[in-house]
Amino acid sequence: MKSLAAARGIYEKLGLSVSPEEVVESEQVRVVMVPLGESRLELLEPRSEDSVIAKFLAKRGEGLHHISLRVPDLEAAVERLKKDGVRLVSDEIKIGAGGHRYIFVHPAGAGGVLLELVE
Amino acid sequence: MKSLAAARGIYEKLGLSVSPEEVVESEQVRVVMVPLGESRLELLEPRSEDSVIAKFLAKRGEGLHHISLRVPDLEAAVERLKKDGVRLVSDEIKIGAGGHRYIFVHPAGAGGVLLELVE
Repeated sequence: MKSLAAARGIYEKLGLSVSPEEVVESEQVRVVMVPLGESRLELLEPRSEDSVIAKFLAKRGEGLHHISLRVPDLEAAVERLKKDGVRLVSDEIKIGAGGHRYIFVHPAGAGGVLLELVE
Repeated sequence: MKSLAAARGIYEKLGLSVSPEEVVESEQVRVVMVPLGESRLELLEPRSEDSVIAKFLAKRGEGLHHISLRVPDLEAAVERLKKDGVRLVSDEIKIGAGGHRYIFVHPAGAGGVLLELVE
């Protein structure tokens, strides 16, 4: 979203806890987390025009960006998807904030949803 | 999405269980669920042009539609949000499939995200 400060309000009004703001340098975003049971919402605000989130906002406007799924063995999952001809955004596993390894499935292979797989 | 049959494949390839297809008459959609810990993904396919999902697909294309949050007391949550001036899609609580009571917060009040509150 354009403003974390504005967007976090609705969750706080609902009595949910919202984490302190963090910066993910590699993605050029500010982020806060809203824990929801075993899942969580991540609210993202771009901190530069180069951020993929800034480009998403310019193209689509504010809204839901992607869904992340935790998988036990990312290599095995990627191998299986490639074998089945599922299109990935990038063929290589990347390393993000906190050392998490991740890859994105292209929306074409997931009913229009950008799907992140995280180990 | 346009086709549940196509969209469910990626989750099955990832080893997740996908529920049998159900029809929600009141929303004119077919739905399958993908349980994810304490949360779940709902994959929705319109079964008529009148469905809000058909209209969403026509306007925005395939993608993420909304986020649902379970709240313990829907009346109390709605009252608090109204008092705080948060815009709702409809002022009245509705009753959906399975007798669940729900309301939608307007995206304008939630950083562009359509947010459903379910009791």
